[in-house]
Amino acid sequence: MRLAALVSGGKDSMLALHIAAKEHEIACLVGVIPENPESYMFHTPNLHLLDAIASCLNLPIFKVPTPGREEEEVEDLAKALQILRVDGIVIGGIESEYQRSRFAKVCEKIGIEMIAPLWHQDPRKIMEKVVKDFEVIFVRTAAMGMGEEWLGRKIDEQVLKELKELNRKYGIHLAGEGGEFETLVLDAPLYRKKIVIKSYDIIRDANSSTMIVKDYALEEKS
Amino acid sequence: MRLAALVSGGKDSMLALHIAAKEHEIACLVGVIPENPESYMFHTPNLHLLDAIASCLNLPIFKVPTPGREEEEVEDLAKALQILRVDGIVIGGIESEYQRSRFAKVCEKIGIEMIAPLWHQDPRKIMEKVVKDFEVIFVRTAAMGMGEEWLGRKIDEQVLKELKELNRKYGIHLAGEGGEFETLVLDAPLYRKKIVIKSYDIIRDANSSTMIVKDYALEEKS
Repeated sequence: MRLAALVSGGKDSMLALHIAAKEHEIACLVGVIPENPESYMFHTPNLHLLDAIASCLNLPIFKVPTPGREEEEVEDLAKALQILRVDGIVIGGIESEYQRSRFAKVCEKIGIEMIAPLWHQDPRKIMEKVVKDFEVIFVRTAAMGMGEEWLGRKIDEQVLKELKELNRKYGIHLAGEGGEFETLVLDAPLYRKKIVIKSYDIIRDANSSTMIVKDYALEEKS
Repeated sequence: MRLAALVSGGKDSMLALHIAAKEHEIACLVGVIPENPESYMFHTPNLHLLDAIASCLNLPIFKVPTPGREEEEVEDLAKALQILRVDGIVIGGIESEYQRSRFAKVCEKIGIEMIAPLWHQDPRKIMEKVVKDFEVIFVRTAAMGMGEEWLGRKIDEQVLKELKELNRKYGIHLAGEGGEFETLVLDAPLYRKKIVIKSYDIIRDANSSTMIVKDYALEEKS
């Protein structure tokens, strides 16, 4: 099938894209354009890097404006997706039944398939794949035991060990499905180039720290 | 017909979109993603505002990565346009036969119409429409008599008068078709919101000055 891949810049959507790409053609990416970048940024950091990710993957990206209210987002996407000549859309959802069921309804309505390769997968297995094949950093933390010092850290074996420990201690979700953290994929098997961060800001509030990339470059992969 | 509109952020593509929208449905915007934003920015300033323009128009935008070499850009676009369910594409070209003929070939190849409402139109008439209905500023100047002080100026009656004088004195093209200037559309009849620039940088070289928008907001129209 010819698929569009919904991407946020984070590990789940990128991993889902890679899994789907083994069996299907990924024709383009799909992302959201928040109407108010500042407020939205807080929930989905570094959406402004979606263009860079599209360049890394050498794929066009279809961006859909949304006022940033979750209840309208799926409808906005549905309307826009009808313009694309694709047979389906791949999404990165792991456990959110709310999101999955609304997406499924939209896909049925416009007559395309919904592919959710990570749906109900073991978070540990997901994170092991991320460690093995991707270069992913934390860009937002909002959980006990995950302070600002986690921002920019690459998800590797050591990080996974610490996450498992925090999972035991505080019950944080290993893959951050409870909003404990957000990530950004700097390199992936299908990237032709990788993203190198040159400078960033950190935004803090009482419950979270967020890293906003200011300057970056796309560099050749060695 | 259902059209995609190729946009750069400047006056010509936005005016072409508005003219086409009188007879056709504009389904989405199409823009390019330069692989190297810094170098590209110099030729097409403020491409990073295309997402804001899409939000203003409440239209999805389809962005196509390109290495930024003109000869490859049209091919990249052609390949990507095949993913869109549209009957044609509207472009803002006025006089560049090189660009028009290459676009025409691409459109023929993928079986869509090319609409070029400004093609061979009188530059004076084009600029009069811009003055009347749009809020457009200069974001790059590269011509005799057009120094840095022109950056950020709105194209109004007075500016048009001065441009006509510069046309007589130095032969500059009234609509900037010779690369004399580049523009950015902050407001237009089909914008639901308008772009308000909050801060910018100016980049200078021996022959030109370029205004790069750093921060902006989308504001309600009065």
